[in-house]
Amino acid sequence: MIQPPEFKNIYFAQAADVWLQEWADSQSFSQVFVLCDQHTYRHCFQAWRPNVPFLARAQVLLIPPGEASKSSHQLRLLWSALSQAGADRHSLLINVGGGVTTDLGGLVAATYMRGIPFVQVPTSLLAMADAAVGGKTGINHGEAKNRVGAFATPAAVLIRPSFLETLPPAEWYSGRAEMLKHGLMADAAHFHAVAAVDFEQRRMPLELLRHTLALKQAVVAQDPREQGPRKKLNLGHTLGHALESFYARTEQPLRHGHAVALGLQVALALSVTHLGLPPEEAQEALQRLRADYPWPALPAPWAALEPLLRGDKKNKGTEIRMVLLPHLGEAQPDISLPASALQTALEQVRAGHAL
Amino acid sequence: MIQPPEFKNIYFAQAADVWLQEWADSQSFSQVFVLCDQHTYRHCFQAWRPNVPFLARAQVLLIPPGEASKSSHQLRLLWSALSQAGADRHSLLINVGGGVTTDLGGLVAATYMRGIPFVQVPTSLLAMADAAVGGKTGINHGEAKNRVGAFATPAAVLIRPSFLETLPPAEWYSGRAEMLKHGLMADAAHFHAVAAVDFEQRRMPLELLRHTLALKQAVVAQDPREQGPRKKLNLGHTLGHALESFYARTEQPLRHGHAVALGLQVALALSVTHLGLPPEEAQEALQRLRADYPWPALPAPWAALEPLLRGDKKNKGTEIRMVLLPHLGEAQPDISLPASALQTALEQVRAGHAL
Repeated sequence: MIQPPEFKNIYFAQAADVWLQEWADSQSFSQVFVLCDQHTYRHCFQAWRPNVPFLARAQVLLIPPGEASKSSHQLRLLWSALSQAGADRHSLLINVGGGVTTDLGGLVAATYMRGIPFVQVPTSLLAMADAAVGGKTGINHGEAKNRVGAFATPAAVLIRPSFLETLPPAEWYSGRAEMLKHGLMADAAHFHAVAAVDFEQRRMPLELLRHTLALKQAVVAQDPREQGPRKKLNLGHTLGHALESFYARTEQPLRHGHAVALGLQVALALSVTHLGLPPEEAQEALQRLRADYPWPALPAPWAALEPLLRGDKKNKGTEIRMVLLPHLGEAQPDISLPASALQTALEQVRAGHAL
Repeated sequence: MIQPPEFKNIYFAQAADVWLQEWADSQSFSQVFVLCDQHTYRHCFQAWRPNVPFLARAQVLLIPPGEASKSSHQLRLLWSALSQAGADRHSLLINVGGGVTTDLGGLVAATYMRGIPFVQVPTSLLAMADAAVGGKTGINHGEAKNRVGAFATPAAVLIRPSFLETLPPAEWYSGRAEMLKHGLMADAAHFHAVAAVDFEQRRMPLELLRHTLALKQAVVAQDPREQGPRKKLNLGHTLGHALESFYARTEQPLRHGHAVALGLQVALALSVTHLGLPPEEAQEALQRLRADYPWPALPAPWAALEPLLRGDKKNKGTEIRMVLLPHLGEAQPDISLPASALQTALEQVRAGHAL
């Protein structure tokens, strides 16, 4: 069982607004910038701004919504915008948005003048549960997701669950998938608790958000630079990223969390065949995942997936490495597999076979 | 007096080649890339390559020589080149060149896949004495030098003085200026020893290179992220960068070190008027600097310099902050000055007035 979380630099709900105002009062920022996309500006920042008097002086930087903004093009535009506004090392950047905004804005802050202070304010469940926490920032380059980036520590991450009220169901399920991943990786009870929350409840209990971040932080604290244990967080992501890239080019794009949930299903199957995970444990988890995260009608051909898998950052040379589970709630990174094993498991899970 | 240097990760002369081969043998790099410009490829890398068997497997990445390559355009081209070559987190990047190559290549390595191992192999005196050591990487953006970058620690810096044999005199003097700066900042005897070496000797004694890096490293180790003491290294740079930017647009561009040496002259004058540096100490140092680093015939108008000074990263808001010297060999950062004081000192030094 995980120790009660010590949330260094993560502030929740009303405490987040209080912290931001007090911190800003104690600093002397030369300028304050807020990065949003058009949606988070309208639905989140405008509603939030009156709650924190300090935000009155913020200058807003807008990016188009969507994954396409996680690009070197937007990175350069934002460097230019800060430069033209005369931002200096004492300027603050607050990123208000989903993972695209927090990943891109984090990299802007990490590289502008070799690093300026920044605050992450995730507005989607995916960004609250995963992207905004842990110090990874990045952009895509060419077809490769997060090919470019930096490890950078925000001054704080502010988790305001009220932002979730405007979230569409598909986004909500996408974020929940990362919470399910944290459970499979480190706490089976968390997996079941999160799986029991559905979108009809219109909220994600704050205690589950806190716990999911405690699980993530425990792993990140052991290994901030992903040399070892942190690789566990990539559970479901090796195949998940490949599926996400493949379907991005089709008429049925998959949300990140949905793609990860499919990757988790295949990781469960491979954990049974290659790591001795008891089939009955795996089967129950697999059924829960299948119910909420169905496979797309259009199958992804292996010939298209394999090159995407081989471009994955976790690979060394040409082998395929994955995170698998000896037990539910316990992950083991760097399991090398022949590609054929992954292909077989993928096809069986997609076809709905029992484990 | 500075303690004898402990050169963690800096290797000199033949020991550098030995270290690289032994280190490479102990690792298992998936691929090895060498970044050069056309000049350093021909004059340095080709001569060096046969000395280190491991370099036989290196793939060469070429950039055009010159400051224009320190750009987001080249950064993106190199991200693409690594990506297309299938570089992964276990790939090594070796940067062989002057400050442009080590600054740009360092940033590429710091950001590709959120950081891959890299080695700095400076080939100019400027890069050996300064740019390649201390963990700063960066590119220019718009007109602003080093506006974008990251702090990143190379696996090693290799100092091979034989590369200096092909260096033209102006480049040699440019690099020597940073060594003179280290002396003024932290060790007056070093200033005088370096000032006594002229280009006619065709070499820079290895012990002076070692000592200059010891002086720099002592400051960097106290404050890697430039929150406090490291700012001392900016001695001469506030005005130096502005002069460099101004003259870059004229037909008489100034080399970086030459511009810094002019900045040092004005810093000496301001140290006398504002910090009580004894005029006779300052006068002797000023004369030595003037002899080797003359002012350009075309004066830089204050109206053109002031906006360049105000864009400087060391400023907070609109004030001008400089590093000044209460004594030769002792620097004090964050001295706030009215712009008029800087203007007056600049004009007096340029006119050749005594202190």
